[in-house]
Amino acid sequence: MGLSTLTHEVEDGILTVTLRRPEKLNGFTVEMADELERTFVEVNDRDDVRAVIVTGSGKAFSVGMDLSVPGNAFGLDESLQPTLEDMADLDDPGLQKVRDTGGRVTLAIHDCRKPVIAAINGTAVGIGATMTLAMDARLASDVARVGFVFGRIGVTPEAASTWFLPRIVGMPTALDLVYSADILDAEEAKACGLVRSVHAPDELLGAARALADRWTRGKSAVGTAMARQMMYRNSAQPHPANAHRVDSLSMFYMSLGDGAEGVAAFREKRAPEFGSSAAKGMPPFYEDWVGASHQG
Amino acid sequence: MGLSTLTHEVEDGILTVTLRRPEKLNGFTVEMADELERTFVEVNDRDDVRAVIVTGSGKAFSVGMDLSVPGNAFGLDESLQPTLEDMADLDDPGLQKVRDTGGRVTLAIHDCRKPVIAAINGTAVGIGATMTLAMDARLASDVARVGFVFGRIGVTPEAASTWFLPRIVGMPTALDLVYSADILDAEEAKACGLVRSVHAPDELLGAARALADRWTRGKSAVGTAMARQMMYRNSAQPHPANAHRVDSLSMFYMSLGDGAEGVAAFREKRAPEFGSSAAKGMPPFYEDWVGASHQG
Amino acid sequence: MGLSTLTHEVEDGILTVTLRRPEKLNGFTVEMADELERTFVEVNDRDDVRAVIVTGSGKAFSVGMDLSVPGNAFGLDESLQPTLEDMADLDDPGLQKVRDTGGRVTLAIHDCRKPVIAAINGTAVGIGATMTLAMDARLASDVARVGFVFGRIGVTPEAASTWFLPRIVGMPTALDLVYSADILDAEEAKACGLVRSVHAPDELLGAARALADRWTRGKSAVGTAMARQMMYRNSAQPHPANAHRVDSLSMFYMSLGDGAEGVAAFREKRAPEFGSSAAKGMPPFYEDWVGASHQG
Repeated sequence: MGLSTLTHEVEDGILTVTLRRPEKLNGFTVEMADELERTFVEVNDRDDVRAVIVTGSGKAFSVGMDLSVPGNAFGLDESLQPTLEDMADLDDPGLQKVRDTGGRVTLAIHDCRKPVIAAINGTAVGIGATMTLAMDARLASDVARVGFVFGRIGVTPEAASTWFLPRIVGMPTALDLVYSADILDAEEAKACGLVRSVHAPDELLGAARALADRWTRGKSAVGTAMARQMMYRNSAQPHPANAHRVDSLSMFYMSLGDGAEGVAAFREKRAPEFGSSAAKGMPPFYEDWVGASHQG
Repeated sequence: MGLSTLTHEVEDGILTVTLRRPEKLNGFTVEMADELERTFVEVNDRDDVRAVIVTGSGKAFSVGMDLSVPGNAFGLDESLQPTLEDMADLDDPGLQKVRDTGGRVTLAIHDCRKPVIAAINGTAVGIGATMTLAMDARLASDVARVGFVFGRIGVTPEAASTWFLPRIVGMPTALDLVYSADILDAEEAKACGLVRSVHAPDELLGAARALADRWTRGKSAVGTAMARQMMYRNSAQPHPANAHRVDSLSMFYMSLGDGAEGVAAFREKRAPEFGSSAAKGMPPFYEDWVGASHQG
Repeated sequence: MGLSTLTHEVEDGILTVTLRRPEKLNGFTVEMADELERTFVEVNDRDDVRAVIVTGSGKAFSVGMDLSVPGNAFGLDESLQPTLEDMADLDDPGLQKVRDTGGRVTLAIHDCRKPVIAAINGTAVGIGATMTLAMDARLASDVARVGFVFGRIGVTPEAASTWFLPRIVGMPTALDLVYSADILDAEEAKACGLVRSVHAPDELLGAARALADRWTRGKSAVGTAMARQMMYRNSAQPHPANAHRVDSLSMFYMSLGDGAEGVAAFREKRAPEFGSSAAKGMPPFYEDWVGASHQG
């Protein structure tokens, strides 16, 4: 996978994705969106990766859409731009093609079968902030700053952030962050629940790796992948019976594989050795289920 | 707009709505419901208003339904009262006409295109408490008291409060407040997340105005209106793809208007001058979208 | 009701259900699932019970599925076990019969018309932890430990816990608890919002009884039952109008019964005497409503 805006490093089962446009403070481009989207699709096929960390090179995490690139201000494909008349019918097939680039990335993260951790090393604003909301935890350097600054430049929150943000900080705080468009320092971001923990700059990646390890080392790859999708998808359903239908089947499926090993190891008082593959061994109903969960 | 139960005051872009039945501790009546509902519908057409504050005159915010008005105990239109037999079929068209008056108000607040702030100057119980849940923040005087007291008089929570309250305080606290029907003082209400901040009585309105200003001064009117609706509606959808569909279109629409000015101002290092109108300039898909979001 | 895995005790309107396999640390069995499910169905018909407390006998609350029972590891009915091919179609009627036993219990708790309180007297892991998530509060002894340990044995969260847990502790903490599979002590469980309060072992049941009393003594039985179902069901709907439809009808229905008494008592400055029956007096639309709320 040829990459020009980010780098990949796999060490001991953890993929670190580093946004790599430091001279532009890791400003987001359509190319970066494409490379991030591909990263989170392709990592599902990599059994050598248990978890993903996303961080930035240089001083910033990402300052958001790179406004210095001509035509890049909003990251929309200009060939698809509808007329105002087209925009009257939400079900118009042409409209379905208008896709915010940040949302392509966060939906790919959402569909990812591995836990994803943001290591926010510096300023994260705009899509630099919203991309982290689809990740499972946000750790920050003590020099980090985070802001949903859309209101400052006359636009609206993107990257499905209006779905993610209230789940992370609660609705009152989410409204405050979006209306005010304030930029929080690391401690403020921690106080409101946006950030899990704050670290010295040179300890940030180590802390992210330790968390990734705690979450995934010695765990079932399919079990972790299923748990991730069940948490986000089941909790958004209108009734717990919707969760029950899926978790019953998942438990049965797991009982044929890693669960059998887990119970045997428990009975034999030894560490389990799980062998499942999140690339090849997801349950037969997985694709149907994730495809259908857009509906309530 | 002739008003008999409340007053309107617009100053520097902020509409202050004052519940004005102080001799009845601002007890809620059907007339007050009508006037509040009209207020939150009509403010959408007023480009001179950026935000709304709701407060009470005299000692109380509102003590809830005014039980001293004959026939007013539950604020239901008596001509529409169904029989028990009618009530067996939830889809019966007659039943659809049975509408709690408090819910008419909170749904109008929910649909409002401006941020709404409750300045709770004194006791707020019953609909006096639940009406504030559809607002974006609750600020309280240090003499305020807030309670969801329905359980004390043998009725159930109304005004769609069972939808709003868990979003604000989380489910365990919401259950506790509703089951116990306790009345909290201001500090208790702040401790559980119901209230954002507590103020000396003579500083309450100033604090509410400062917050309204921080949220809306110099921001895009359409951007703020869209952000408000996206936060509440998108987060309640079963999947972030539902949010992505709308935020993609919203970003594209904004990019043609206030967003273009915002980016130009950013590039030119000057303050932006946004010109959009939330009365006349909402996106073409807006009505379709808000109409359809009752479904998952 | 013949019971072999738990005991029932009703005192002053409160049913205490005690998991009673102390020699197995109250390990969960299919029989225990059956008896718990029946308990929460049948209590709906008992007007002498206002609230339910669930606790454990001996040292543990429940250590989860009793792995010492042959074939019991996952509590699935072996006669219903589908093949992998069957599992490709989520709508296959055969698959609908694969039901996790823990989920049968939590769905019965979810449908219960009485508040339910967990008094976690000791270790609660696996289904011992997840069964408490469908309850309205979790009180813990200071020796209690709570863990969602599924990841340790290669299986996935069950009992619809992926629906309940994020509502209780928020999504970031829920993800952390499930990924890590850590076991929390009582204070840690309180710090993250999972547990409401921590008590000396000999004060735990008293505290649970005091809370049950505060929630239900002198309250309307139908009012409490409706409030419970409205909180969980309405808040999971995509729009507050869905709540408004039900709370309007509920308020009207209550106004004919306990609400009339409540208002009369309020006007006469006396304590109300509510007479409604949650066994026989639920609103005519109740069954339709709870049946339909699986859909958004």
